[in-house]
Amino acid sequence: MSQEFHYIRWLRSRTTADPRVLVGPGDDCAVLAAPTRPLLVTTDMLMDGTDFILAEVGPRRAGRKAMAANLSDIASMAGVPLAAVVSVALPRASRELAEQLYLGLRDVADAFNVSIVGGDTNSWDAPLAISVTAFGEATDRGAVLRSGAKPGDWVFVTGPLGGSIRGHHLDFTPRVREALAVHAAVELRAMCDISDGLAADLGHILEESGCGAVLFADAIPTTADAVELSRTSGKSPLQHALGDGEDFELVFTVSASDGAKMLREPPVPGLAKIGECVESGLWLESDGKREPLQATGWVHDF
Amino acid sequence: MSQEFHYIRWLRSRTTADPRVLVGPGDDCAVLAAPTRPLLVTTDMLMDGTDFILAEVGPRRAGRKAMAANLSDIASMAGVPLAAVVSVALPRASRELAEQLYLGLRDVADAFNVSIVGGDTNSWDAPLAISVTAFGEATDRGAVLRSGAKPGDWVFVTGPLGGSIRGHHLDFTPRVREALAVHAAVELRAMCDISDGLAADLGHILEESGCGAVLFADAIPTTADAVELSRTSGKSPLQHALGDGEDFELVFTVSASDGAKMLREPPVPGLAKIGECVESGLWLESDGKREPLQATGWVHDF
Repeated sequence: MSQEFHYIRWLRSRTTADPRVLVGPGDDCAVLAAPTRPLLVTTDMLMDGTDFILAEVGPRRAGRKAMAANLSDIASMAGVPLAAVVSVALPRASRELAEQLYLGLRDVADAFNVSIVGGDTNSWDAPLAISVTAFGEATDRGAVLRSGAKPGDWVFVTGPLGGSIRGHHLDFTPRVREALAVHAAVELRAMCDISDGLAADLGHILEESGCGAVLFADAIPTTADAVELSRTSGKSPLQHALGDGEDFELVFTVSASDGAKMLREPPVPGLAKIGECVESGLWLESDGKREPLQATGWVHDF
Repeated sequence: MSQEFHYIRWLRSRTTADPRVLVGPGDDCAVLAAPTRPLLVTTDMLMDGTDFILAEVGPRRAGRKAMAANLSDIASMAGVPLAAVVSVALPRASRELAEQLYLGLRDVADAFNVSIVGGDTNSWDAPLAISVTAFGEATDRGAVLRSGAKPGDWVFVTGPLGGSIRGHHLDFTPRVREALAVHAAVELRAMCDISDGLAADLGHILEESGCGAVLFADAIPTTADAVELSRTSGKSPLQHALGDGEDFELVFTVSASDGAKMLREPPVPGLAKIGECVESGLWLESDGKREPLQATGWVHDF
């Protein structure tokens, strides 16, 4: 944050008083009050042409997605969001573009009591890139990792899946409140946000936990978007729910007794039990038949 | 950090055991042990064509600069570096480019006991962009801001200035150790790293502090690069020292008595007293004459 820019006055004037922030935008570093619990840190870079089409969605919506995608990572550890910094490469030195982008970032940050405490604004002759680094605090129950799932656990998701490309991937609400409510009600064993796709992200949990899972085809909630897409895509709504990325729901495991408790007294609406952990493999059970399931989520370049 | 990538295994395998890092690369967030002192946070994005020419300098040197520029911001608050996260947009999906870039980041991170605890690696059909967010802890004496300079303070720099474009802007050592040594010896009143240029960055201190300063032309140390550049640039070495950016030395103020103490017993080599704070204005004194000095540092697009 060594590169000073006039725009910082505008950003600073909109930084609300936050007792957790000792020094906000305008110095070489922001200074946060020492957290009393372990600090969660995540970073995601979003790029025009990859994560959104700027000409179609506009900078405000792009900014919202950039902040929400990072807060989704805080949610997936059952953390309390705290603050964020933002660095951007703007495709041209447009104050209007920068301001709309920051308004979008603030739309989501404000909704989760997150202070944007600093940033680095640049422009260049290339497409927009936004990098957000978000901070959070673990709760007293600790951060939820991917590695704690055990055979016999029940697998849940926080909402319906699939077809996010029709708009949800830009306009989702990170599941911060849901994660905290579930974590307060029961012991979360392992959790991940669904950015690569249900099968791929559950696969991450299984790989880190050293166990397997069977998913129940009939139990996986699908979105209206997945149904709509399936009319032309040649895939079923279930395939979209299993394989599409950027749902930004959470997939998590709890013990069977905690799972039963959640079904009796759901801490938040929308939770669905979609499967159970087993010793090994990833399986899809449909009509009483169990078949191997490929982790067919979003495939990155490497 | 929701986007998983095979490359993270490589990164993880090179993350040394660090008791400050509870969870490193590979989960949705990194988890750092709760810092006992205020947390410093800074972010800088470096772009091919703006901050370096990738084809000329190569990815390893670009990576070094990206980490060093961020640690320079930690240094300018007299902080102890702790950890960093890195997000990159690679111009193509080249494992070799990514690895060389991370090796460069690690060269500098390792030298300052900084763990790279996570990241987000992407590729696109556009130039390389690297965003680093670095964390540090304030010392018991507190973070040093830009706003604490007072009339009568002495102004120091940590080393010679000017001509960094000849290579120093890529290969500098962030002045972390120097800042901590000076802060341990005396009370630092205000500090800033020189990224925009001496006049501009001292100007930031003066603006935040509400005072002025006079610089003594004869006392400003200039580099051999500034002298070399002056042969063809039409500027004097002093003008290069005042106006060139990216020296990444520190400019700071201390009380006159602390300043005198530092001249008697320098806590680190290379310190130079270059001026004194006054009530208002920015002045250059040469041959007994005092003239207004423009903050002619690096000019950003906005």
